[in-house]
Amino acid sequence: MKSLLDAIRPTVFIESEKLKTFTNLDLTIASETFQHTGSFKFRAAYNLAVHVGNDAILTASSGNFGQALAYACQLLNKKCTVVMPENSAKVKIEAVKNYGATVDLIDTKIIGRGTRVSQLAEQISDVYVASAYDDLFVIEGNSTLGDEISNRDFDVVISPIGGGGLISGISKGLCRSGHRAELIGAEPLLGNDAARSLRAGKIIANETEPTTIADGARTVSLGKHNWEIIKSGVAEIIEVSDKRIVEATRILFALANLKCEPTGALSLGAILENSDKFKDKKVCLVVSGGNVDAEIYRRILIG
Amino acid sequence: MKSLLDAIRPTVFIESEKLKTFTNLDLTIASETFQHTGSFKFRAAYNLAVHVGNDAILTASSGNFGQALAYACQLLNKKCTVVMPENSAKVKIEAVKNYGATVDLIDTKIIGRGTRVSQLAEQISDVYVASAYDDLFVIEGNSTLGDEISNRDFDVVISPIGGGGLISGISKGLCRSGHRAELIGAEPLLGNDAARSLRAGKIIANETEPTTIADGARTVSLGKHNWEIIKSGVAEIIEVSDKRIVEATRILFALANLKCEPTGALSLGAILENSDKFKDKKVCLVVSGGNVDAEIYRRILIG
Repeated sequence: MKSLLDAIRPTVFIESEKLKTFTNLDLTIASETFQHTGSFKFRAAYNLAVHVGNDAILTASSGNFGQALAYACQLLNKKCTVVMPENSAKVKIEAVKNYGATVDLIDTKIIGRGTRVSQLAEQISDVYVASAYDDLFVIEGNSTLGDEISNRDFDVVISPIGGGGLISGISKGLCRSGHRAELIGAEPLLGNDAARSLRAGKIIANETEPTTIADGARTVSLGKHNWEIIKSGVAEIIEVSDKRIVEATRILFALANLKCEPTGALSLGAILENSDKFKDKKVCLVVSGGNVDAEIYRRILIG
Repeated sequence: MKSLLDAIRPTVFIESEKLKTFTNLDLTIASETFQHTGSFKFRAAYNLAVHVGNDAILTASSGNFGQALAYACQLLNKKCTVVMPENSAKVKIEAVKNYGATVDLIDTKIIGRGTRVSQLAEQISDVYVASAYDDLFVIEGNSTLGDEISNRDFDVVISPIGGGGLISGISKGLCRSGHRAELIGAEPLLGNDAARSLRAGKIIANETEPTTIADGARTVSLGKHNWEIIKSGVAEIIEVSDKRIVEATRILFALANLKCEPTGALSLGAILENSDKFKDKKVCLVVSGGNVDAEIYRRILIG
């Protein structure tokens, strides 16, 4: 059984002269697109699966956390069940199945994800119900990315923010090493609950699930454990329009040879919203994952 | 002035469970897509520019070598001139210009590249005329990738082959470390001069410039310096159809989150041509570069 640090892959730091010239900024990408299962979520999922005593783990996810948890459980010989909407992309359902997990498909018009998870939690013996972000094991797993970033010199670190699992983990990693970098969140304008929360000093939820193209940030609200870290550890949250998210995804393709998912491009999107702010600063852009359907990506590349 | 080893970026080794499951093979990608200027060519160009005494360097290239040489000369404060067909992609012409080189545009219907290079070589004082592959500095620069691969355990290394600059460099690196891996070339079937040369035991040229989608391998013939190494250092050259090249590019996108150019996907293409051959072997797939136009890439992704 591997420890977390042996199980994860180090993040890939990428510098592109073309991107630096285009933005006239000192940017370094920290890419989690080549992490196991294609996103940072594996850090969280493995740390959770290796630490909880339960033999079975249950979650609801139509995205990266489901794949990451399924693979972590496969490595650790634990049972994994992932509740997914039946209209999820077939390729995502297949990916979770291929990692050996049980997929529980629901019609979200008939039953909510939370309700279905509660039902299954009563049926599966000795099961741990995992949140993709609001969980201390998740935050601790993601903090390893903060540790890796701490080994380099940056003035600013920009991270995508959805439920807050990634940015709270990075904050934890930066804090424990005493890193001086300012931590900034990049959130879709169409689901700007975290930005509103930081301004208000308390958690404010979106009224409904946001419809942004950044599907990894379609969360209704920050998690409570995440908020406790974010409220003091994050300096600012920049709201990024979907137009900028698409533009940033395209720029990363063209100038950095990087395939990433729209959620991963949020940090460059935040730069595009107001690049003057980052003049003369050494900036780390966290690209959280690379899993995007070919058809969506093709539309993004049209430009 | 940086030494070659300080100037280049280490290659990025990528493993993907999805790719391993799909092919049922033990594959590791060595990706040069994040090398300076987006391809392995920077290794060659920098080594050449740092070693030749001349203040000016001249080459003909519509592709990756032109960008790489322009950037290397920019770093080393040398004058660089790149002869390019006037119908080259605008983005490629701009890239060479942005790296500070002089672009000499020609109408290839009126004057050949070689003729124009000879003309310019007489006009520019103290100029070194650089071949993108048939040059000992080029081979020595590319050998650093062989050195990096030698630090890992592989049974087989598969590399794209065009003019032979990359594979002869890798061969040199593997040989000097005494690495046991078999080195295999992956060449477009539509321009299979290297495969025919290896079978015949002498250099055989294509009749015309091949029309393969793998634009980095549209060379008419292997270089003489390259052939001296290839004839004994390369075990086999697998001919890859354009259909397989496109399929491999798409698979690297979908299963490894890797954006690469068609030429870079040749090594996976070689696997797809005959995967049984690689059963139970540890295989390194060299992905030579990532520079591909968005419109061509969009067509590739249609599937």
